[in-house]
Amino acid sequence: MTVIKRDFLDTTDLSQAEFHALLDLAAKLKRGETTAESALRGKVLAMVFMDPSLRTRTSFEVAMFRHGGHAVVLEPGRGSWTLETELGAVMDGASVEHIVDAARVLGRYADAVAVRAFPKGKLWEVEREDAVMRSFARHCEKPLINLESTRRHPCQGLADAMTLREKLGQPQGRRFVLSWSWHPKPLPTAVPASAALAAAHLGMEVVLAHPPGFELDPDDLAAIAGVSKAAGGSLRIEHNGREALDGADVVYVKSWGALGHFGQPEAEAKLRAAYRDWSMNSERLRHVGSGQGLVMHCLPVRRNIELSDAILDGPKSVVVDQAENRLHVQRALLLTLLGQSEGMGVQR
Amino acid sequence: MTVIKRDFLDTTDLSQAEFHALLDLAAKLKRGETTAESALRGKVLAMVFMDPSLRTRTSFEVAMFRHGGHAVVLEPGRGSWTLETELGAVMDGASVEHIVDAARVLGRYADAVAVRAFPKGKLWEVEREDAVMRSFARHCEKPLINLESTRRHPCQGLADAMTLREKLGQPQGRRFVLSWSWHPKPLPTAVPASAALAAAHLGMEVVLAHPPGFELDPDDLAAIAGVSKAAGGSLRIEHNGREALDGADVVYVKSWGALGHFGQPEAEAKLRAAYRDWSMNSERLRHVGSGQGLVMHCLPVRRNIELSDAILDGPKSVVVDQAENRLHVQRALLLTLLGQSEGMGVQR
Amino acid sequence: MTVIKRDFLDTTDLSQAEFHALLDLAAKLKRGETTAESALRGKVLAMVFMDPSLRTRTSFEVAMFRHGGHAVVLEPGRGSWTLETELGAVMDGASVEHIVDAARVLGRYADAVAVRAFPKGKLWEVEREDAVMRSFARHCEKPLINLESTRRHPCQGLADAMTLREKLGQPQGRRFVLSWSWHPKPLPTAVPASAALAAAHLGMEVVLAHPPGFELDPDDLAAIAGVSKAAGGSLRIEHNGREALDGADVVYVKSWGALGHFGQPEAEAKLRAAYRDWSMNSERLRHVGSGQGLVMHCLPVRRNIELSDAILDGPKSVVVDQAENRLHVQRALLLTLLGQSEGMGVQR
Repeated sequence: MTVIKRDFLDTTDLSQAEFHALLDLAAKLKRGETTAESALRGKVLAMVFMDPSLRTRTSFEVAMFRHGGHAVVLEPGRGSWTLETELGAVMDGASVEHIVDAARVLGRYADAVAVRAFPKGKLWEVEREDAVMRSFARHCEKPLINLESTRRHPCQGLADAMTLREKLGQPQGRRFVLSWSWHPKPLPTAVPASAALAAAHLGMEVVLAHPPGFELDPDDLAAIAGVSKAAGGSLRIEHNGREALDGADVVYVKSWGALGHFGQPEAEAKLRAAYRDWSMNSERLRHVGSGQGLVMHCLPVRRNIELSDAILDGPKSVVVDQAENRLHVQRALLLTLLGQSEGMGVQR
Repeated sequence: MTVIKRDFLDTTDLSQAEFHALLDLAAKLKRGETTAESALRGKVLAMVFMDPSLRTRTSFEVAMFRHGGHAVVLEPGRGSWTLETELGAVMDGASVEHIVDAARVLGRYADAVAVRAFPKGKLWEVEREDAVMRSFARHCEKPLINLESTRRHPCQGLADAMTLREKLGQPQGRRFVLSWSWHPKPLPTAVPASAALAAAHLGMEVVLAHPPGFELDPDDLAAIAGVSKAAGGSLRIEHNGREALDGADVVYVKSWGALGHFGQPEAEAKLRAAYRDWSMNSERLRHVGSGQGLVMHCLPVRRNIELSDAILDGPKSVVVDQAENRLHVQRALLLTLLGQSEGMGVQR
Repeated sequence: MTVIKRDFLDTTDLSQAEFHALLDLAAKLKRGETTAESALRGKVLAMVFMDPSLRTRTSFEVAMFRHGGHAVVLEPGRGSWTLETELGAVMDGASVEHIVDAARVLGRYADAVAVRAFPKGKLWEVEREDAVMRSFARHCEKPLINLESTRRHPCQGLADAMTLREKLGQPQGRRFVLSWSWHPKPLPTAVPASAALAAAHLGMEVVLAHPPGFELDPDDLAAIAGVSKAAGGSLRIEHNGREALDGADVVYVKSWGALGHFGQPEAEAKLRAAYRDWSMNSERLRHVGSGQGLVMHCLPVRRNIELSDAILDGPKSVVVDQAENRLHVQRALLLTLLGQSEGMGVQR
């Protein structure tokens, strides 16, 4: 009798039925219809943060606590050992511990392990393999949760989907515009890919609006298109940022760097500089769904760069609800992966 | 039916009756007369430390745990995002997240939020407004607790007051000398202002002993005088550090920088250097209440600079009791703000 | 009625009977024969990490949680104040708080305190006194647990002993070779001394295999010899690393620096460089117990430097079990020091 462990590295690890069941449970938890106070009693989640966090760390720590469990937070390179990520490395440099050993050991102490590892910005062809997350998953004997890797931020995707369902009622067929924004730094593509996937799971009309040169990775586009098709939605790309906003039910503002210049900061900054006017201000907002659309952002947000104060603090912004929903979808996820709960339909 | 949230930013947020009721509860908790083991069951306190801590962090984390709750500890700039504190800022610099968004989001995850933010040492006219703490309070929908701001350290004030009641029985009318000390750095005035306020709440004869040029902020002096008057005590300033000690029932040793030279380190250090003999050693201690007085300090203390080893480790020192009492007053505070307890008289 | 507090600074703080009783309890906890879910209910462990940790921190935090308690984690110099360790210091430098005060205060907040403090690499004659750990123990009124000091890592020693009993059944008289390895840095001797002591407690034939110049401190050798004799085992030193492996039941690979050149990095590195071939690879492993022996390491390990990937990931390696056993021996230790449990025979 082999137990197959269940990782959560991408929303596409879930079937459409599982995806919706998880959001249903999250909504019940948010409304207080179920508390499941002791469902994670005695359970431990070990969280490994290679990069900073506010929402992710707090919401997971609270989620474990709310159900009787506990989250341990480790920060390699700060309070914990610097981790080597290359397989087969001859470790005579600065790294003190290999990720393989960390993964195995944490799998012995905890009931689930969660990892955040941003891209290092050297070579896209290498980093797009998401080796840190994959290594951890392979060598850890307990379920692994992706807290944002080079390619995906699936917990953000779940929270985005929950927010869309909450605000739109029936998102199927509604227009979701992922609107690229200028930003002082070339940010990763994990959030835009995951947000677009979230809208695709809901069968929305997904529009990716960004300047030429800011295409997502082809595999991400294929994944979004595939999920979209299965869920009865659509996907298209727009290079005119202003026109893309017309008729949008939702505009999700997000910046990311040009993958074609990944690891070449000067060239990338030069390309990006040409699109400094891609920013969401009140003038541009008037185009969004003829003034009726919602504004989303994953946070943290550069105020008055990506989005103006007026929009963020105004009535169309649902960014704080998105952040709150991180807590509820993660409670649902943890109950599904670790809880002694009645069938969630996500066993394999 | 609107619930008005209750912040704790200053001991003056409490009426005299509330102040004493809170200390009464703290004393009962310390004696074990009430355990209230489950009074904070399921409750979460999110703590944001912009600056280091030992006592504050540990005592709050223990306080939440002892009553069934949990404290999440965040450190912006280390494991968490660097926070922008200026309202309306165009965020194209180093700060990744605005304090407004952090406050809103944490208010969704936690039942109360607590913040430590020391002054930055640039411009007193600006920093005296305590903008970080005020912003957090304004934008967070849950009760905010001040873990030491530019102007106040009210939890230290509560612990100081509890210690005074514990050691003196009836502090009313007894003489409390806040005795300035030389220190290698210009420290903030939050602790001296809060300690003097604590003694004022108890109706003590408060003496501020410091060299000329080290006056507290005029608003702080007015606040201390106001509380003092209401509680039947008195306030006076002494510039002769040795004479001030004669007849003291309690000497609270504390260093702080000259506000007149705030943001001008060289000028401030030069002024401070003239008072290197303001230090508490055995010779000087003989003057304290003719050798009968108690010695207090908030910790951390520079040994053999502010206070000699002989005094700190001797029978008159109550500094460890002060530190322990942080735990008990904060348990009382948290039970009052968050507990399902019987009326503490602090609802608004 | 005086309660004598019980510290755990070295495995030699335990009698042979206590040592084995603790391992018996750890084995029962690992097998789930006892859960003691609420044995540490309401109890707090304050952990002070002056140096990084993955296993120690996680396993202690999980251990407290699994029995209803809570661990607070402090990091002086990061989120907490920089600690002064010298007694009598005139604190006009960078350190903000004295270890004496930190120890006293934490003793008021917590039911036990645990400290990690690695050597600073200046002067062995001074640092061998283990002053940080001794100061903490003297000034803290609650039990102190050594999380690795300059001289000892007794929790690692307990886990090593548990692993040896688990894998060998009856370790008495079996051959345990502590095999020095080259490493890019001069590591401390706490782990090798503690591992050799662990094998000595079990009455094993202990062989210390290292190049000339890498002798452990004479007091450590005397301690190992003393425990060995009491437990019916033996101790000998070998300078031929390859021959030492013949007939070994267990080889414990570990690097450490030459104490004769402590604080002299160039001279030490030069001496160490001559022994770069002291490394455990497949060729050398064939000598270990004629290919039957077990391979141990405390982790973190420099892969392909101290031990090859092939060995670490192969069937003879028990390094992950060693790490897991940290959790179980520490649960047993905490229950013994803090629990309301039935007599463990370790009261004083």
